[in-house]
Amino acid sequence: MRDIIFVTGNANKLKEVKMLLSSDSTSSINVINKALDLDELQDTDLVKIARDKCKQAMKFLEPGQEVFVEDTALAFDEFNGLPGAYIKWFVKSMGLDKIVQMLDSFPNKGAKAITTIAYADKNGEIHVFQGITQGNIVPSRGSLNFGWDSIFEPIETNNLTYAEMSKEEKNKISHRSRAFEQFREYLATAE
Amino acid sequence: MRDIIFVTGNANKLKEVKMLLSSDSTSSINVINKALDLDELQDTDLVKIARDKCKQAMKFLEPGQEVFVEDTALAFDEFNGLPGAYIKWFVKSMGLDKIVQMLDSFPNKGAKAITTIAYADKNGEIHVFQGITQGNIVPSRGSLNFGWDSIFEPIETNNLTYAEMSKEEKNKISHRSRAFEQFREYLATAE
Repeated sequence: MRDIIFVTGNANKLKEVKMLLSSDSTSSINVINKALDLDELQDTDLVKIARDKCKQAMKFLEPGQEVFVEDTALAFDEFNGLPGAYIKWFVKSMGLDKIVQMLDSFPNKGAKAITTIAYADKNGEIHVFQGITQGNIVPSRGSLNFGWDSIFEPIETNNLTYAEMSKEEKNKISHRSRAFEQFREYLATAE
Repeated sequence: MRDIIFVTGNANKLKEVKMLLSSDSTSSINVINKALDLDELQDTDLVKIARDKCKQAMKFLEPGQEVFVEDTALAFDEFNGLPGAYIKWFVKSMGLDKIVQMLDSFPNKGAKAITTIAYADKNGEIHVFQGITQGNIVPSRGSLNFGWDSIFEPIETNNLTYAEMSKEEKNKISHRSRAFEQFREYLATAE
């Protein structure tokens, strides 16, 4: 087995990521969770934030230890990419309803859900993978278990929010699954 | 003369800060500007952001060198403190008009302008000073030279935005002047 450390403190994310990384081609990979308390940079450059977070994680680990972090952003088209990586602070501070209400007077509700993965290989080189799903911000519908899933309706689905889909449906089109698909392929070829 | 380094890349801020720190009691202080490229943490804790920025600045300087940084936030009451320190990214990415429009459907336009100063003394100990001015977010009026000054109307003034006031008027009531007043007093007593 090949151990790869995933840094997160979010149990839901860990479960989703384990599911996304498991496939025939990566069956030899063992995702180990570490809940390191890493800082995140203020920036609108999502790749920069993820790379920086990965570099911080590496400082806590043995040299040669493979590790990855992921960061998820919700980028409103009308806001030119914001709240972006700051979305988690908005969810925590003001709640989903007010986030939807911020867009009330903007006809364009378009938004991109973006996952950025930064992975350090055993030589300490960092590789970045990004997945994007286009959708709309809508009044909250569905389970409230997973961040802002209940206010994001991907354009590719039949008017369901992420929170109204089964895990399998969501994983077919989600920003996170798209990023992890690239990551999984990379891991399979670069063993 | 006692040299104190102020880390900023913003010429307007530097000018305002030099004005705010000059008084009889601090006439021996020489503010020297350094435009270091410092990272800022994602956080809603403004003191934490400023302290971290000050610590970073210290790494670039000789031990014993006094240095300070300041960080300014615009905290919407309705948003429980956000955009907060992220306001600069909102100004840059979406512009002032859309920031005002975000609040269109919220009757409460209240906001706090907050400056947080973190100062490292010659022993490397960090001291924090904070100034707050309560006001309202209004459609942009006045000069556009200084960040979000044209959309912030302090409650203590006759319906003028910061951008419609003279520098002297603004310095009587501004969040920045309140923070620097505390800092100036501290410097005068702790020479």
